[in-house]
Amino acid sequence: MPLPLWHNSAWMKAARREPTDVTPVWLMRQAGRYQPEYRAIREKVGFLKLCKTPSLGAEIMLRAVEQLGVDAAIVFSDLLLILEPMGLQLEFDEGAGPVIRNPIRAAADVDRLEELDRLDQLDYVMETVRLTRAGLDESLPLLGFAGAPFTLASYAIEGGASRDHRRTKCFMLDEPAAFDALMGRLARAVARYLAGQLAAGAQAVQLFDSWAGCLAPDDYRRAVLPHTQAAIRAIGSDAPVVHFATGNPALLPLMAAAGGDVIGVDWRIDLDDAWRTIGHDRAIQGNLDPAVLLSSPDEIRRRVHDILDRAQSRPGHIFNLGHGVLPQTPVENAVALVDAVHELSRR
Amino acid sequence: MPLPLWHNSAWMKAARREPTDVTPVWLMRQAGRYQPEYRAIREKVGFLKLCKTPSLGAEIMLRAVEQLGVDAAIVFSDLLLILEPMGLQLEFDEGAGPVIRNPIRAAADVDRLEELDRLDQLDYVMETVRLTRAGLDESLPLLGFAGAPFTLASYAIEGGASRDHRRTKCFMLDEPAAFDALMGRLARAVARYLAGQLAAGAQAVQLFDSWAGCLAPDDYRRAVLPHTQAAIRAIGSDAPVVHFATGNPALLPLMAAAGGDVIGVDWRIDLDDAWRTIGHDRAIQGNLDPAVLLSSPDEIRRRVHDILDRAQSRPGHIFNLGHGVLPQTPVENAVALVDAVHELSRR
Repeated sequence: MPLPLWHNSAWMKAARREPTDVTPVWLMRQAGRYQPEYRAIREKVGFLKLCKTPSLGAEIMLRAVEQLGVDAAIVFSDLLLILEPMGLQLEFDEGAGPVIRNPIRAAADVDRLEELDRLDQLDYVMETVRLTRAGLDESLPLLGFAGAPFTLASYAIEGGASRDHRRTKCFMLDEPAAFDALMGRLARAVARYLAGQLAAGAQAVQLFDSWAGCLAPDDYRRAVLPHTQAAIRAIGSDAPVVHFATGNPALLPLMAAAGGDVIGVDWRIDLDDAWRTIGHDRAIQGNLDPAVLLSSPDEIRRRVHDILDRAQSRPGHIFNLGHGVLPQTPVENAVALVDAVHELSRR
Repeated sequence: MPLPLWHNSAWMKAARREPTDVTPVWLMRQAGRYQPEYRAIREKVGFLKLCKTPSLGAEIMLRAVEQLGVDAAIVFSDLLLILEPMGLQLEFDEGAGPVIRNPIRAAADVDRLEELDRLDQLDYVMETVRLTRAGLDESLPLLGFAGAPFTLASYAIEGGASRDHRRTKCFMLDEPAAFDALMGRLARAVARYLAGQLAAGAQAVQLFDSWAGCLAPDDYRRAVLPHTQAAIRAIGSDAPVVHFATGNPALLPLMAAAGGDVIGVDWRIDLDDAWRTIGHDRAIQGNLDPAVLLSSPDEIRRRVHDILDRAQSRPGHIFNLGHGVLPQTPVENAVALVDAVHELSRR
């Protein structure tokens, strides 16, 4: 049986650190509020409902991929959906972001978080994977994703987004055994969920540790690293894993130790420094500041040039922003970014 | 004339990297909402009014110093007050934090920001310095402080606190000349303001670059470093300068290049790594996660031990949190921290 076309796509080759003709590029939140079409759909459909309507989710992502000309699609979904079948009540209030009505506040609450033994309640995600894969050009890979255990734990404990993550840290310090149990349960759930997305048709997966940057290295090393490592190992697949975090460049060596074929970095550190830190035996993803997309195509081009310069055409660089596309981004600037990466990296 | 007692205080000696009997310690926001006495005063007096009532500001700080047993006082004030005489309208809405009614949004707005030629409109700050100094034990130094140019520019442009600092970054990228002019004006103002606080009786000053951590190293190097450097040089005093930022350990070598006798670091990097990065020819301040103060005295003691261990009794370490005391902190835990630092570091 011949290999599917995506196998030798620029994205997959870069994830395996094989040379490519151009540097592959995709954008976190490449389907989202910065697109007029997306906003039009969201005026009619709530965010949670949208995530649970596979045909719409697939359509939104396929349109973004075509509009931008990026080198990979990612399942249209949300980090927190995995928490619903585990027993947490999730709501997306307009404006206020996600809210969990029954957060984990005490050690005893961890017991009521259910083990994610089966994925039936997340079948709508698998259906979004299947429909997106079915509609996507065979030469492009589809990424699945999940929140990393710490980021999910933080949402579960805070009950939503947080500035100082103080409840999470208190829980971690004051109830180390319960926190460990929570992280273990989440790590197992994440591994099953990602394996499910791969089985449903994704070619690679990304683990988002969006909040890990609030931690001191010692706390990450002790309370987070073993669980992220366990999650990555338990996926049990050869598919590339992107391990992404934001907010603290000093965690990069520890993130690399936890695992991932590709380490995703934000813009707070120069790409060459970051790559040296994680080691050249890993691929790297990043690292443009999303705010640059609010500027002009000329400025975007200059910044793309800088980052490519730091990558020095070394195999294993996947271009991306250091965080999601900002809602205020002009669509033409996102297109200009993708074009600039392809044009300036052509070898 | 004999030297005043504060000259050979542990804090001043550590700032000069001279050996001390114990590691000096103070806490950012050591006078603040975590204290019942402070909350009682704030129920009667608004925050801006409090900053403008020198007798109250001095009283609040002197009480905190006595309560905690810390090795330095800092002027009770706010980063943003300097912007008022420069023409910005400042309000502290309860709950919402600071708001600037007439933010700098366009290049033309920079011209209406007035040069801070004189300090008369900030005389209440100088009076707070004088009264705090007059009431403070002669063996303890008093610190003055100011926001660093980038943090002030960010507040001035965003009109308040911000999560993504997107307006500031757009301004910096799209209007580089105007941004440079704004930073230059702020740097001159900051230097005059800090020199004024030293003249009024402070023994050292701290520059807070609270928001610089949102920047990529290249942006900091190009748009921020020269102005912070200019501000520090223009103070024109031998008094120690603490240069503090939070949110991005990868900026540390650049912060050190910008200047400061003491570099203040947050908890996102291990103290020994941070010190190696900034160079052992500087003193260092930090670096306990403020969230640890929400835990138990035992945990606090363990963490203090870890940090002191990383400092290895090398002269030039001033113990502090990596950011301000959280409002939810029990007073007895703050006291436990100070006691632990003194006890565990005694040589």
